[in-house]
Amino acid sequence: MERLPAFRDFYPEPTPHADVWSADARQHIFAAWRETARRYGFREYDGPPLESLELFTRKSGDEIVGQLYNFTDKGNRAVALRPEMTPTLARMVAAHERNYKKPMKWFAIPQLFRYERAQKGRLREHFQFNADIIGETDPAADAEIIALLIDSLRALKLTSSDFVIRLSSRRAWQQFFSSRCADAGRAYDFYQAIDKLEREDESASRAKLGSLGIKLEDVRAFISASEPTAELGAVLKNLVARGLGDFVRIDYNIIRGLAYYTGVVFEAHDQRGEFRAIAGGGRYDGLVKLMSDGKVDLPALGFGMGDVVLLELLKARGLLPRSDAGLDVFVLIEDESLRPDSLKLIEDLRIAGCAADYSFIPLKSDKQFKRAVELNAAFTCRLERSTEGSLTAKLKNLKDRSERTLPPAEAVAFLASLSASRVPVPH
Amino acid sequence: MERLPAFRDFYPEPTPHADVWSADARQHIFAAWRETARRYGFREYDGPPLESLELFTRKSGDEIVGQLYNFTDKGNRAVALRPEMTPTLARMVAAHERNYKKPMKWFAIPQLFRYERAQKGRLREHFQFNADIIGETDPAADAEIIALLIDSLRALKLTSSDFVIRLSSRRAWQQFFSSRCADAGRAYDFYQAIDKLEREDESASRAKLGSLGIKLEDVRAFISASEPTAELGAVLKNLVARGLGDFVRIDYNIIRGLAYYTGVVFEAHDQRGEFRAIAGGGRYDGLVKLMSDGKVDLPALGFGMGDVVLLELLKARGLLPRSDAGLDVFVLIEDESLRPDSLKLIEDLRIAGCAADYSFIPLKSDKQFKRAVELNAAFTCRLERSTEGSLTAKLKNLKDRSERTLPPAEAVAFLASLSASRVPVPH
Repeated sequence: MERLPAFRDFYPEPTPHADVWSADARQHIFAAWRETARRYGFREYDGPPLESLELFTRKSGDEIVGQLYNFTDKGNRAVALRPEMTPTLARMVAAHERNYKKPMKWFAIPQLFRYERAQKGRLREHFQFNADIIGETDPAADAEIIALLIDSLRALKLTSSDFVIRLSSRRAWQQFFSSRCADAGRAYDFYQAIDKLEREDESASRAKLGSLGIKLEDVRAFISASEPTAELGAVLKNLVARGLGDFVRIDYNIIRGLAYYTGVVFEAHDQRGEFRAIAGGGRYDGLVKLMSDGKVDLPALGFGMGDVVLLELLKARGLLPRSDAGLDVFVLIEDESLRPDSLKLIEDLRIAGCAADYSFIPLKSDKQFKRAVELNAAFTCRLERSTEGSLTAKLKNLKDRSERTLPPAEAVAFLASLSASRVPVPH
Repeated sequence: MERLPAFRDFYPEPTPHADVWSADARQHIFAAWRETARRYGFREYDGPPLESLELFTRKSGDEIVGQLYNFTDKGNRAVALRPEMTPTLARMVAAHERNYKKPMKWFAIPQLFRYERAQKGRLREHFQFNADIIGETDPAADAEIIALLIDSLRALKLTSSDFVIRLSSRRAWQQFFSSRCADAGRAYDFYQAIDKLEREDESASRAKLGSLGIKLEDVRAFISASEPTAELGAVLKNLVARGLGDFVRIDYNIIRGLAYYTGVVFEAHDQRGEFRAIAGGGRYDGLVKLMSDGKVDLPALGFGMGDVVLLELLKARGLLPRSDAGLDVFVLIEDESLRPDSLKLIEDLRIAGCAADYSFIPLKSDKQFKRAVELNAAFTCRLERSTEGSLTAKLKNLKDRSERTLPPAEAVAFLASLSASRVPVPH
């Protein structure tokens, strides 16, 4: 039995081979995303992985169907596994925004799906950190969401030598386009052409732009010579005040391919240009209105950051920590008559917050110790009964091999205090 | 635009109305599950939400298709959204078990799907805590998985007054059946009849059992008079040694409906009998072999605990904590000339681990304070510039309204120290 092509299995580390993904690495980045969102005062939401097909075609047109994991369900509904989170967010916001004070700061970590022709290395699913601010037009909100993006990456120990936020303005590009092409219906084609400028060869770009009556040289001049818009200036100034100036630069090569952006747009890229974009986003002030049939009109902005490029980058920079069970203690049971007392000790350790393990079955002393070492436990603990009948706990630190003997309750308290200090970032 | 019927949206609290689920409550139970699994030395894994249809029909027969969310994908593959995690686990274990020492202790928190005729209150998806031990035949492993189940519920503050684990033996029932009915092919019908005994009326049960040549009275006598098997005795003794005896009782009414259990089986129920089962599981020693075409033969056991009944129970017992953004501090910006310094302070607070928020735009002092109170922030913090030009931070504790003035860096350190001590359970 095989898994479906272009889907992933996530195994505990050490992962057996390159075809297999690390569940620990995934949890590591999820924890960093969630923790950074918490510090920024963002609240978590989620919607169903399956939505009606219309939710996605309404926003992106029927041409998106070719890329969707869509099907007809048993109730004869046209449905799709969600390819992005923003339509679900817009739907949820439109339904219940009255119950929330503005601005709303919300995030989610959905799994997203697509169905394109299978290509080597091209997955049909990924996870994405989605963060959005709803109900604020001021560029201060744009700066806040970009700061969140920066600090999410810094929480994973990436620095300004590793990545940069390239900041641009869809509004500026929209003005550039409308001053040169009267056919507003072709704006999407124009955004697509600019979006692909860095990846396509020059003649293709020239032809596409030419069909819109726009010269490649004009585009190039705009990219290299444009001053930041007032909005972009405000965003930059705000980020500089936070001490985050090193992480951003204005770069009009960025436009974002999707049709619905209306203001500031941005992408996070690795500094060496070795990977695809790490994250991208921007302002989409008209989308909630569109998705709610005009009932709710709220400005909004956000970004999405996928797990795949991020994992590749962290791996390349040596920033994925080695993961194991994180055992605080392995309890050695060398005298089977002490198994009931040892089980009670293990229960007490776990209730106190320690990660504790042991051998289910009688094993030779050296094999139990070997297992403790394999599991990279911080300590071993062994009960002993004195001649007077009282129990003591012998602790051995597996790092420095130092030993100490304590009453069992004190051993539990000691190990629990170390355990608490060993887990700085919740996950 | 509506979400699909029988799917759920998860909103931040306070959730707007009864139709809507709390993303915070969901995170609360996910965190308790994950944290308890960590203490028990269980490692996280995950597979795709979509699998080939055959993965599920191989284990459960074609009759399961009527309950599956299955469809034919664009590549003409028969696929299904996973209805349970065990087939995926068995597939993953069969593929790579050689790389892991036994026993393997693994867990996952998948979203699962089904497609039955829509009924009121019947959902088409739920989340489930799945924990399994692979590679150990000793009843000590059965005791360990049951202890994990008990402590997962205790981590949510449920006590032995709230729930009980009803412990039984599929093996004992199998022997009961084969001593009375020669047609081994009808064993599944028998398990189903016993499983429904408490919920169906007597005449229906009597008829089903009669068709197998078995008397209801014999079944009743077996349930009320049977002694624990040696296995069950070992499990009980183990749990009593841990101090968990109050949480379990032998109860042969339990048999579990699924075909593949082979030994100890169990369910967690609320003590008042108001809800469906909270969790259920058991030993399934032949399944990995079946799923791997005989290539890998490993004993295994585990349980699944869904989020829906658990949330209902926690709600009924008043054990769902009130959730908010958990703000450590709301920074008041009353003098706009201090906005850049305030933004730096906010960045420093967040980097130090505090959850910090503020107003994006200039707002009257009292409105900012009102917002801080609405968000239930622990403190407000306001920068002031002295006549000599140095900055100080004025902190106000919103609980006791006490105030203190500190240099900004000390205010950050002070708030960070409180923040760290406020988060006992990671999430």
